[in-house]
Amino acid sequence: MSQCNPALLEKLINLLGSGGVIYGEDLANRDMAWLKDKTTPWAIARPKTTADISAVMKLCSEYGQSVVTQGGKTGMVDGAATSGDNLALSLERMSGIEELDPLARTMTVLAGTPLQTIQEAAEAAKLSFPLDLGARGSATIGGNIATNAGGNSVIRYGMTRNLILGLEAVLADGTVISSMHKVVKNNTAYDLKQWFIGTEGTLGIVSRAVLKLSPLLHSENTALLAVNDFDTACTLLRELDREFGGSLSAYEVMWNSFFAESTNPENPAHKSSPMPRDYPYYILIETRGTQSEKDAETFQQVLESKFEAGQIQDAVVAQSIADKEGLWAIRDNIESLLQLSPILTYDISLSIPTMAAYLKDTEAAVLEAWPEARFIVFGHLGDGNLHIIVATDEDSPERHHAVDAIIYSRLKNIGGVISAEHGIGTEKRSFLHCSRSAEEIAMMHTIKTAMDPQNLLNPGKVLPDKT
Amino acid sequence: MSQCNPALLEKLINLLGSGGVIYGEDLANRDMAWLKDKTTPWAIARPKTTADISAVMKLCSEYGQSVVTQGGKTGMVDGAATSGDNLALSLERMSGIEELDPLARTMTVLAGTPLQTIQEAAEAAKLSFPLDLGARGSATIGGNIATNAGGNSVIRYGMTRNLILGLEAVLADGTVISSMHKVVKNNTAYDLKQWFIGTEGTLGIVSRAVLKLSPLLHSENTALLAVNDFDTACTLLRELDREFGGSLSAYEVMWNSFFAESTNPENPAHKSSPMPRDYPYYILIETRGTQSEKDAETFQQVLESKFEAGQIQDAVVAQSIADKEGLWAIRDNIESLLQLSPILTYDISLSIPTMAAYLKDTEAAVLEAWPEARFIVFGHLGDGNLHIIVATDEDSPERHHAVDAIIYSRLKNIGGVISAEHGIGTEKRSFLHCSRSAEEIAMMHTIKTAMDPQNLLNPGKVLPDKT
Repeated sequence: MSQCNPALLEKLINLLGSGGVIYGEDLANRDMAWLKDKTTPWAIARPKTTADISAVMKLCSEYGQSVVTQGGKTGMVDGAATSGDNLALSLERMSGIEELDPLARTMTVLAGTPLQTIQEAAEAAKLSFPLDLGARGSATIGGNIATNAGGNSVIRYGMTRNLILGLEAVLADGTVISSMHKVVKNNTAYDLKQWFIGTEGTLGIVSRAVLKLSPLLHSENTALLAVNDFDTACTLLRELDREFGGSLSAYEVMWNSFFAESTNPENPAHKSSPMPRDYPYYILIETRGTQSEKDAETFQQVLESKFEAGQIQDAVVAQSIADKEGLWAIRDNIESLLQLSPILTYDISLSIPTMAAYLKDTEAAVLEAWPEARFIVFGHLGDGNLHIIVATDEDSPERHHAVDAIIYSRLKNIGGVISAEHGIGTEKRSFLHCSRSAEEIAMMHTIKTAMDPQNLLNPGKVLPDKT
Repeated sequence: MSQCNPALLEKLINLLGSGGVIYGEDLANRDMAWLKDKTTPWAIARPKTTADISAVMKLCSEYGQSVVTQGGKTGMVDGAATSGDNLALSLERMSGIEELDPLARTMTVLAGTPLQTIQEAAEAAKLSFPLDLGARGSATIGGNIATNAGGNSVIRYGMTRNLILGLEAVLADGTVISSMHKVVKNNTAYDLKQWFIGTEGTLGIVSRAVLKLSPLLHSENTALLAVNDFDTACTLLRELDREFGGSLSAYEVMWNSFFAESTNPENPAHKSSPMPRDYPYYILIETRGTQSEKDAETFQQVLESKFEAGQIQDAVVAQSIADKEGLWAIRDNIESLLQLSPILTYDISLSIPTMAAYLKDTEAAVLEAWPEARFIVFGHLGDGNLHIIVATDEDSPERHHAVDAIIYSRLKNIGGVISAEHGIGTEKRSFLHCSRSAEEIAMMHTIKTAMDPQNLLNPGKVLPDKT
């Protein structure tokens, strides 16, 4: 039910112009992107500048109006979903690169800039912004920052948090916190950007950022390996990371449950496999460097030594860009999993020594509850991050909750986390206690209350209700 | 003036045992390490466990007793200095490694563990904890975390913040916040460890941590280069970082003012120079990898190409460990600078494009005020971090403040920071406004007040007084 506030609406239109506010029937035409909850807010404010955001928040503070900030709306946990009494604040008109400084190797951007725009601008300057994820075309850097996005290169470059040098954000009362430094080292009292990165828009609205760029590494080597057991997959990770001297940039493990489905000829979305489909584990590895000949030679030599040592059962080394893309297509073949719908997808993280027992126990519990279920595993092993797909025969909130409970409750006693990279949003709030103690959650509430005493920013997200 | 609280003292002794509290005459025998202000607290509590810290803080909350946490007392800005009405909380009895997990590549440690103990334990397991700094023998990991220490390997591994997976801290009211996860990816609501890293003991007392270990890289290549101008030093940094494919682990620039003094035969602490002493800039570079032969060949080839291109005027490549140590000895020769005492040392950070103009302007201002002064520059150029040494003929608080004002005020308009790695402590509080806005400082006060409403934790440090 929409809770339009006519007085506030008028002030917002005065402030932002008529194109600056979407309301009424026009709301129905909005693209909801990946939002699962399609409820529209009563209006969408579309600021063009940080000063606009500040002015909007001053008005919202005055009226006690709750605000949900929206970027590309490609989040996985409905952190940007709205209810009818929210005002949405879309950063779609705050897109653009303010500066690319090749000497400092920094890029200054507006929060609404799509990730891919940033990646391409960096590459045009022979540099790289190494954050990468599937939604790159529409996900915005502000959303990446607010959710501390992970993605494909975390093993080498870290999460989004590690790639941000400076940040500007607007507080609930409209105060602008501008910490737009361009330096790696800055120990001048509290590092306030940490208060906004990964807090999913609940403590402030990210408006601009200074990004750290890296050298563009053009020498890539890619291979698909097959191994017989999980211990070997873990040992190989450590050995390859050491022997490649830090150039390992991907170590993606596919359990047979994933690989066999992604390459299953009977699945309409399958990709072709370059090796037998019945090995227990497959690993996609990639290194990046700059010494093409030497890197390729090292890559080949190291893999041969692992083959001779009996650790690798089979290996295909990409000889062309097409080969490389063919191998990645198997790993990225989410389409083949969607054929098994209804499916539930999980994004968890746990330390490597605890993985095997966790998966065995959890799969058994799922199969005991639903003997026909599919339990499919793949993930960024180098980061301890697993994605689990559970396909059962029912698509209902009750089933969703029942599977969640099996997956999440078993993480509690082994220090596992219920969200490695997707965040909490609205979807995982009720399971937060599986990864965080009552004391931690109480401290989060203390911080939230201090910084947003009226609870205006993304209310009802991330934190469970106070008990 | 000591403000002993006999009732609290008795309760502390009951809690920690007589060896757990130092007071009265015994205080005079305490090693003050690098603390400049030698004022003793009225007592020192020496907890053995997190539960002890929690119990101490519950008592202190009850009595309104301020607490200064102390590790190795090797900080550079007197962040661990005490006044007579403080209780010091020393973590010297909380030292030790609880677990080293070679599979997860993590180490779980008590906060009072010296950095060097951690480095050595990692290396014994063929792993590396890459944080490194001069005070490694006595600096504790808790202090490194509380100050977000930088050091020699930041260009490749980042600050301490990047090396911490899990953290446990005790709040002012004794609440234990235990976030001892072992995983790289953890987006389960607010990342509370960020609230304690780099906040210098003002928001909580770090008690334990989970450290992220890296592969041990045994193939090192080191060289000393001479270049003719600052632009070339900057260009070379970008080019070498790219051409070495991410293996560059040090890029230390010495201005002639530093190099010529460090190698000055008339200075009693001088080191011998392997090349002429009159080049404008010297650069110590290091790469680390694992492919010894290939790495050495690449190192040599890349440097030769820079020499042929006229970018490098002179180069000495270390052929032995003794060579390598000889080159580093020039860079680490702080002893030679101490011969110029009284000296003032600065630790600033600014983006590379702004450096040359800043240094020219600042040196001119120093020399205008004190024509006989020495102005010496060196630093981690790869991190934008410069150390400046100013030697004038007077050692007084007034002179100190006057030089501070010249160095810090010029950073304000160019986004420079007054503390790259040392922190703010007591020494830089009054200049914090040169790097942080009034809004930023107000937000810090909001956070501090919410988390420590009685202002018990390290009061009078880091933040300027409220205006």
